[in-house]
Amino acid sequence: MNALWLENNKISLRDIHQPQKPNEALIKIRKAGICSTDLELVKGYYPYTGILGHEFVGEVVEADDLSWIGQRVVGEINVVCNQCEQCRNGRSTHCENRSVLGILNRDGTFAEYTQLPIRNLHRVPDSVPDEMAVFTEPLAAALEIQQQIQVKPADSVLLVGAGRLGQLIAQTLALTGCDLRVVARHALQQDLLNARGIRMIDEEQVQPWRWDVVVEATGSPTGFALARKAIRPRGTLVMKSTYKGEMSVNFSSIVVDEITIIGSRCGPFEPALRLMEAGQVDPAVLIADEFKLQDALKAFGRAAETSVLKVLVEA
Amino acid sequence: MNALWLENNKISLRDIHQPQKPNEALIKIRKAGICSTDLELVKGYYPYTGILGHEFVGEVVEADDLSWIGQRVVGEINVVCNQCEQCRNGRSTHCENRSVLGILNRDGTFAEYTQLPIRNLHRVPDSVPDEMAVFTEPLAAALEIQQQIQVKPADSVLLVGAGRLGQLIAQTLALTGCDLRVVARHALQQDLLNARGIRMIDEEQVQPWRWDVVVEATGSPTGFALARKAIRPRGTLVMKSTYKGEMSVNFSSIVVDEITIIGSRCGPFEPALRLMEAGQVDPAVLIADEFKLQDALKAFGRAAETSVLKVLVEA
Repeated sequence: MNALWLENNKISLRDIHQPQKPNEALIKIRKAGICSTDLELVKGYYPYTGILGHEFVGEVVEADDLSWIGQRVVGEINVVCNQCEQCRNGRSTHCENRSVLGILNRDGTFAEYTQLPIRNLHRVPDSVPDEMAVFTEPLAAALEIQQQIQVKPADSVLLVGAGRLGQLIAQTLALTGCDLRVVARHALQQDLLNARGIRMIDEEQVQPWRWDVVVEATGSPTGFALARKAIRPRGTLVMKSTYKGEMSVNFSSIVVDEITIIGSRCGPFEPALRLMEAGQVDPAVLIADEFKLQDALKAFGRAAETSVLKVLVEA
Repeated sequence: MNALWLENNKISLRDIHQPQKPNEALIKIRKAGICSTDLELVKGYYPYTGILGHEFVGEVVEADDLSWIGQRVVGEINVVCNQCEQCRNGRSTHCENRSVLGILNRDGTFAEYTQLPIRNLHRVPDSVPDEMAVFTEPLAAALEIQQQIQVKPADSVLLVGAGRLGQLIAQTLALTGCDLRVVARHALQQDLLNARGIRMIDEEQVQPWRWDVVVEATGSPTGFALARKAIRPRGTLVMKSTYKGEMSVNFSSIVVDEITIIGSRCGPFEPALRLMEAGQVDPAVLIADEFKLQDALKAFGRAAETSVLKVLVEA
């Protein structure tokens, strides 16, 4: 089958054996999305060799449980052991023996087919089209914030960054009724937020020491510095992006101000599907472009352009 | 009156005017304790000029409310405005206009007398002797951990550091029934913990990625590194010490492991007094030495010695 292969910081289209792990469903990819993590993997921030991609919607074509065949599905990206201490304590996304779709020891979704255990799959409601369903994974990641902390309706919440993930975070945080302001740098990011009535704030206008909750979604030290400056004493700073290398932080001020910093990664799929089904969020507005799998290299070029949000690859 | 004055990183005994702010109680100091913060102030880590000291027990000798006169008291160190956003939202220890006893814009307790507003004072129960009551402030700081996070009886808890504050944290955490292990470097620290049946663990034996809660109480980058290594995915790292300058941290791993880091400072006085009154904690075992106020310079020299825990100054 055709697939986008990453090796030594280079992506190329290759003809690869169709996957055939026993005990896993075979899924024909319908659409797959390019995520910032994919771009970072290509840059070599994390070592990975294999088929890239982890955001997808597809159709089950082979499965031990025949009731799944023909189902349109999305899939959780962490394939877990169910036996380690993390799994046994309800933290299976932190499984110590996990493989991660298109990220760690497991071929991903920029291909004609991919594989996942049936327990990783979620049926997509008929009313959720492919171009929305393909956002289930990043939308779940946005919702992870509210799995971890309570965002109260009366909270003042600052979101720093309005890129791919930032837009989804903005849409989900807005549903809480909180007093949300978003720092968005690019015109397109601003237009999308405006269209949903989500309010923005200029970086220079961000009041220091005032915000109950700050979500950092830029992955840059300047974004972190703004977030740190904005948070009030005893406030919560959610870190939703990874950072290149180490970052230098004044921890004494974090102790004195009793700040809580919380890292946030993968989230729950079912609430993401429910919100899309109910029309409470609309991730499809992020789509900038769509390419066929044979043009996946062009798709990656497009996704790397400044201010381009989501680029899809159709298998 | 005699007082220990800090100016330009130098402490000296001086004859200073007795304090006489209107609307504040005048307190005759009975005992005052030397804290790591005092030693750091002398080293110049934070700028402060004035009388040092913030841990004390004393007797009210002047007050607008005559019912306080003659009372044996301890005092909260943050003098607050009750009007700023922090105060109005129940975070008065974070008052934006605060002065802090012996630390920020307010003369402290290594003196014959000090002053505090009556609302900062707490009566000391008769059964709590001076040599225990003088620990109320650091014991309250230890209890702040449990004001901020829930330490569950079944939690595995690692405390890194068993110095002045670490010993009090160990004593209070042990009351939760949690599976507590303490990393203690010095023999005296270990003896005190042993005497209370608090279990220790060698640094080299600390299992990485396993502990529900880790409290960092060393204030050193190596202590932080050990704490970070030990915490489990989705675990909570409490930072109970301040750090010189900035610290370099891999935040990507904190995001991937969804760690919570929480800074922790001043805590509640009444629970500290209750625990001492009930005999549930015994901070007096930390006392290494006691000096008269005129020997306060010697007292600071003694407090700076390795493995010396609490040194008191008697006014």
